[in-house]
Amino acid sequence: MKYNLNFNDVAESYLFAEVADRVAKYSKANPDKKVIKLGIGDVTLPLVPEVIKALHAAVDDMAEKETFKGYGPYEGYSFLRDAISDYYKKMGVALEEGEIFVSDGAKSDLGNILDIFDKDNVVLVPDPVYPVYVDTNVMAGRKVLFADASEQNGFLPMPDYSVDADIIYICSPNNPTGAAYTEAQLKEWVDYANSKNAVILYDAAYECFITDNSLARSIFRIEGAKTCAIEFCSLSKIAGFTGTRCGYTIVPHALEKDGMNANKLWLRRQSTKFNGVPYIVQRGAAAVFSEEGMKQIQNNLSYYKRNAQIIAECLDELGIPYTGGNNSPYVWLKCPRGMSSWEFFDYLLFNAQVVGTPGAGFGRNGEGYFRLTAFGSRENTEEAVKRIQLLLK
Amino acid sequence: MKYNLNFNDVAESYLFAEVADRVAKYSKANPDKKVIKLGIGDVTLPLVPEVIKALHAAVDDMAEKETFKGYGPYEGYSFLRDAISDYYKKMGVALEEGEIFVSDGAKSDLGNILDIFDKDNVVLVPDPVYPVYVDTNVMAGRKVLFADASEQNGFLPMPDYSVDADIIYICSPNNPTGAAYTEAQLKEWVDYANSKNAVILYDAAYECFITDNSLARSIFRIEGAKTCAIEFCSLSKIAGFTGTRCGYTIVPHALEKDGMNANKLWLRRQSTKFNGVPYIVQRGAAAVFSEEGMKQIQNNLSYYKRNAQIIAECLDELGIPYTGGNNSPYVWLKCPRGMSSWEFFDYLLFNAQVVGTPGAGFGRNGEGYFRLTAFGSRENTEEAVKRIQLLLK
Repeated sequence: MKYNLNFNDVAESYLFAEVADRVAKYSKANPDKKVIKLGIGDVTLPLVPEVIKALHAAVDDMAEKETFKGYGPYEGYSFLRDAISDYYKKMGVALEEGEIFVSDGAKSDLGNILDIFDKDNVVLVPDPVYPVYVDTNVMAGRKVLFADASEQNGFLPMPDYSVDADIIYICSPNNPTGAAYTEAQLKEWVDYANSKNAVILYDAAYECFITDNSLARSIFRIEGAKTCAIEFCSLSKIAGFTGTRCGYTIVPHALEKDGMNANKLWLRRQSTKFNGVPYIVQRGAAAVFSEEGMKQIQNNLSYYKRNAQIIAECLDELGIPYTGGNNSPYVWLKCPRGMSSWEFFDYLLFNAQVVGTPGAGFGRNGEGYFRLTAFGSRENTEEAVKRIQLLLK
Repeated sequence: MKYNLNFNDVAESYLFAEVADRVAKYSKANPDKKVIKLGIGDVTLPLVPEVIKALHAAVDDMAEKETFKGYGPYEGYSFLRDAISDYYKKMGVALEEGEIFVSDGAKSDLGNILDIFDKDNVVLVPDPVYPVYVDTNVMAGRKVLFADASEQNGFLPMPDYSVDADIIYICSPNNPTGAAYTEAQLKEWVDYANSKNAVILYDAAYECFITDNSLARSIFRIEGAKTCAIEFCSLSKIAGFTGTRCGYTIVPHALEKDGMNANKLWLRRQSTKFNGVPYIVQRGAAAVFSEEGMKQIQNNLSYYKRNAQIIAECLDELGIPYTGGNNSPYVWLKCPRGMSSWEFFDYLLFNAQVVGTPGAGFGRNGEGYFRLTAFGSRENTEEAVKRIQLLLK
C-alpha cells in the first residue's frame, strides 16, 4: 500500500499555533496584563432565539415515531432549499430546482468539490488567501498558480489573459484582506472564465457583511456566471453556525462541458460520499431565513459590523492604510513604520496587549500586513482600539 | 478545465429507484392491497429519551453567550471521544489518545479516507457489497478486484495469498449478507494484510447487532490489527442516528509506512477539508454511551433483533437457506425454486405484497439472492412473515 505522497508537499501551517505560543509566553511573563484577542475568526454571539426555538422543535420531532426522521435527501430537505432559494430571489438571483445543495459548511464543500475535477487542471488562487484553497489542491497533486493581491490593486487581482487557469478561486469579501469585488469587476472574471473554459469556485462566506450595493453578494448576479461558476456559502458568519455546521453550495445546471454536467457529477459525489446534514440542524438553518429569524440575525451582524467600523475609524485617524472594515468582518492593515507582520505582532502584543494575525501567514503578499477581526466583544474592541491609538498616534 | 473522467466509469445504480418504480406501479394497479416494505435499510424507532434530553440541553448551551460553542476540535470534543474510548474498553480494546476521530457518519469517512492513499493502490472488495466501496474507488481511478462471497464460503471470503491487494474492505456483520467473521477468521485477514503491507478498511457499522461472543465487534480485538487497520463505525444503527449524523473512525498511531503515518495524514485531511460535527449532535451522541442511554438503546436494538429472528425462524421452517438474521439486522436468503433476484422480487410483491431488495443489485454474486431487513415495525414484520409462509410453504 502506498500513501498519498502529495501530502508531503502540503506546507505545515504553524500560524495560529505560533500566535498562541507567543501569547502564552507573554501572558506567563506578564500575568497582570489583560490581553485582548482580535485575531480570532470565530463568532462569539449565541444563536438567535428563532433558531433556538426551531432546534428545540426539531429535537422534539426526533423523539416521536410519527415525526422521526431517518436518512434525508443527500442535497438537503426542500424546506431549507426553498428558504435559500427565496434568499437568493431577494438578491435578484433566480436559482433552478436542484441547483442548491445543503452541506455541513463551505469548507467541506470547497475541498470536496475537487473530486469532480481532473487532477490535471491548473489552479489559480489569490495571494494572500485562506490556506485551504491551496492545501486541498496540493493534496490532490494539482499545480497551483497565484494571482497577486497587493496595495496596487486594492487586494483585488483582476484576470490576466496570458495565464491559462482551469480552476479559479475567488473569495469576496476576502479572507484575510476584507476586500470585496464590485459586480463590474466580477463580470471581468466571469468573462475570463467563460473564454478560457475555466470554472470559478466562488467563496461567498462573508456576503452578509456587504452593505454597499455596488459590491457583489452572489456571483450569480453576474451575467454568464451560470456557465462558469460554483458558489459556496455558509451560515457560520451570517447566523453564528461555526459550531452548528451548515452551509450550501450552488451548482448551476448550465455548468457543463464535453457531455459532463457539474451538477450531476456533484450529486453523484455527494450521494456516494455524504449522507446529508442533520435534520435538526437543517430546521435551525431554515429559521435563519424566516422573517423573524432574519431580523434577529441582522442585530448580531450589526454588532459585528460596528466593531469592524470602530477598528476602521481608528486606522483612519492614525492614517494607516487598510482594506476591509466596511463590507467585511476583517480589517487588513499595513504594518506601520515598515514593520514586518511578525514584528508588528510582537510590538502590539508587548506594548498594547492586543493580539491580531500576522498577514505573512496567509501568503507571500501578506508580509508587512496584519489582520484584525470584528468578532470580539464591543467592550474589548473599544478597549483595543484605545490602546492602539495611544501606542501609534 | 477538465472534469474527472473516472465518473463515467461509475456504474449508475438503479437498484432502489427500480424497486420504488415497480412498487409504485403495483400499488397503482392494486390500490386495495397493503404493501409491506422490508427492503429499507433505515431505522424507524425514534431517538431514545436520554439522547433527546442531551440534545435539548445542548441547544440551550447554544443560546447563551457563556455556554455557546463556535468551531470545535476537528477530531471531535473530548467528552465524546472519551465516551467512545470507554465503549471500546468494555469490548476489551484499548485505544490511545488521538486515535478516535468523530465524524458525520461512516459513509463520509469511508469515502474521504481514500484521500490519504495513492491512486495506484489495488483495492479488494467483497462481492456482493455495499456499493460505495467500489464507487468511491472508481471515482478516484483505482483498480478494484473482488473477493467472491458465496454460499460455499458462508458469504465470508478468506484471504488468497496469490492476490496482491493494497486496500482491503471488510464489512462485518456484512451489508447485505448479514454474515459476520469470527475473531479467528479476522486474524487471518490481519495476518494477510500485515504480510502484504496492505491496509484493511473495516466497516463495523453493524457491530451492535452481534450477540455471539466468538464474532468480532472490533477489528482491534485482533492482535496485529493496529499496524494494518482503520475501523469505521456509526451511531446510525446502534442509536437511530441515520438522520442525526454521527459516527467515528479509529486510525491507530501504529499504522505507518515509509515515514508516513496514517493518523497524522487523516488529521491533516480532516483539518483541511472538514470542520467537525455539530456540538449539539456530539452531546446527543455522548448520551448514547451513558449508562442510562445504553440501557435505552438496547431496548431498541432488541426490538430490531427480534424482528430479524422472526424472519429467520420463518425461513428455517420453510427450509430456505440464508445468512444473517442473528448478529445482523439483515437476512440474506436464497431465492426459492431457482428464481433470479428480480423474479423473486416480483413474485413476492405480486403474491404476498412484501417488498425486499434483489441481491443482484449488490454485485455479481448477489444474483439469486434477496435481502430482507429487520428495521420495519413488529406488526409489519409479523404480517410479512405470515404472508411469506402462506406463499412458499
